[in-house]
Amino acid sequence: MILPDFQDIIKAHNLIEKFIHRTPVMTSSAINRITGSELYFKCENLQKTGAFKFRGACNAIFSLSDLQASKGVGTHSSGNHAAALALAASMRGIKAHIVMPSTSTEIKKIAVSGYGGIITYCEPTLEARERTLNQIVLQKEIEVIHPYNNVRVIAGQGTAAKELIELFPNLDVIMCPVGGGGLLSGTALAAKSLSSSCRVIAAEPAGADDAYRSFKAGHIIPSHQPKTIADGLLTSLGEINFAIISRDVDEIITVSEESIIQAMRLIWERMKIIIEPSSAVPLAAILENEPLFRNLRVGVILSGGNVDLENLPFASAI
Amino acid sequence: MILPDFQDIIKAHNLIEKFIHRTPVMTSSAINRITGSELYFKCENLQKTGAFKFRGACNAIFSLSDLQASKGVGTHSSGNHAAALALAASMRGIKAHIVMPSTSTEIKKIAVSGYGGIITYCEPTLEARERTLNQIVLQKEIEVIHPYNNVRVIAGQGTAAKELIELFPNLDVIMCPVGGGGLLSGTALAAKSLSSSCRVIAAEPAGADDAYRSFKAGHIIPSHQPKTIADGLLTSLGEINFAIISRDVDEIITVSEESIIQAMRLIWERMKIIIEPSSAVPLAAILENEPLFRNLRVGVILSGGNVDLENLPFASAI
Repeated sequence: MILPDFQDIIKAHNLIEKFIHRTPVMTSSAINRITGSELYFKCENLQKTGAFKFRGACNAIFSLSDLQASKGVGTHSSGNHAAALALAASMRGIKAHIVMPSTSTEIKKIAVSGYGGIITYCEPTLEARERTLNQIVLQKEIEVIHPYNNVRVIAGQGTAAKELIELFPNLDVIMCPVGGGGLLSGTALAAKSLSSSCRVIAAEPAGADDAYRSFKAGHIIPSHQPKTIADGLLTSLGEINFAIISRDVDEIITVSEESIIQAMRLIWERMKIIIEPSSAVPLAAILENEPLFRNLRVGVILSGGNVDLENLPFASAI
Repeated sequence: MILPDFQDIIKAHNLIEKFIHRTPVMTSSAINRITGSELYFKCENLQKTGAFKFRGACNAIFSLSDLQASKGVGTHSSGNHAAALALAASMRGIKAHIVMPSTSTEIKKIAVSGYGGIITYCEPTLEARERTLNQIVLQKEIEVIHPYNNVRVIAGQGTAAKELIELFPNLDVIMCPVGGGGLLSGTALAAKSLSSSCRVIAAEPAGADDAYRSFKAGHIIPSHQPKTIADGLLTSLGEINFAIISRDVDEIITVSEESIIQAMRLIWERMKIIIEPSSAVPLAAILENEPLFRNLRVGVILSGGNVDLENLPFASAI
């Protein structure tokens, strides 16, 4: 198994720089007062397509040879990776075939087709998604871009942490959420190369704690019936991701659903920016473990901002 | 009646620069595609206390002599001006007496007291608010800082447009919402001094169109039973504000409630930032009058981001 290294992140950054937003880093004195720490939020919710996923998708697509690219790319996903792949493909002028469960919400269908993705609907099972994608691959010889278990995707995701640490080189800790591990493995690679002292701490919903359990066990334990509002964090770790995570990540902390909603609300109310529940998981971990982070400079990657405005958790949080 | 001029805005900027955020200007290619224009959003929702009001409050408070300031300041307000005055006063180390209707929402009470304001509750009528404030003024000899009909407040609010135009000197139009006229009069003063060609267009809810009717009539017509979701725009124009507006503003456009909600949703979904309904009124005017703005460079001041997350209009907008 070939693992990406920091050189791949540098190469990725040079390649995708002109396509991505260099997202801002925001601070909130109100939230710092609450946590007793100094938080630096890297706003990937303000990235194109509303999520960090655009970085990895861009790197994967612009790394293809012209011949490979000419046949198009594909993935099965109903979330942020699908939208990111669709936009990156349309920027390169190639086709992106997206296999989506027919049960996907209207807003997700509109996002993917709005970015120019060619949608094929299937039954809402993993088996049907894989089978449908395989048929398209055989027929059209497209390149499949996995959402996280892919060297170039990981290198692309690592550029967010690279930008953050280059701007704030004295971070004591860098944090991000963990689902499949694409963002976390890229973040860990960047942090361990750019800083000798910055710890990498991931945060995960207790209701979807397969990464935490895998990290402790030393081997991948697949996600089983996960249940969390953080809908970007339901998947199991990829093998490449796990290899990097088990080597470079210092800790994974699990958090309650209540803390996720509380953290999400805090960021909405105090910072006036929209983040999706997955993005709130690191701040939830800080809120639940204040003494661990007290007086530390903590970089937090806000992974995305794609939420269904008609179905928000705040009313019930009171 | 003494009107402020652009020199007052320059002085204000020099005075308050170190206290305020120089808020970012954001763009959205998705929204530009929808409107057919080039929009530059000045994000005062990301200003301290979540609204432009902090600029004017800061200028008013830091312009006081030490003797005046030592007795404290006061206002009657339940909205963004109250929070802004409370924070600016606490930054100068003086007291801010805020008269609020007892019926104010919990979230507004918490905001004002959280910034150190001393709240006096009264009956929810204008008469009770004025009487209660007058009692405090007589007793404590405090300086009353009017939310908009005040030369220094107007000069402070004008610094937002000054920052925007200094960054983007080629705007064809600059827009903001109009309620009492503090932001609009400051914006018009700045725009007419910094650019010979930039038109100033205000936007107002049709359900609270007293500024539009005053502008057309040539004299102030008070607001009568206004009804709009844009709760920052319910008040009548001040005299100083009207004098500047009738001289320097090119047009006032009224918009429907549906357009306000649509514009608000567009900014939340596409830009991933939280704005209050009042902030969405200029974009609503652009959406309702696309041909007027086509291919123009339009600066839009997003006035604030203080919303009640438990009472959002999106579900009913479908």
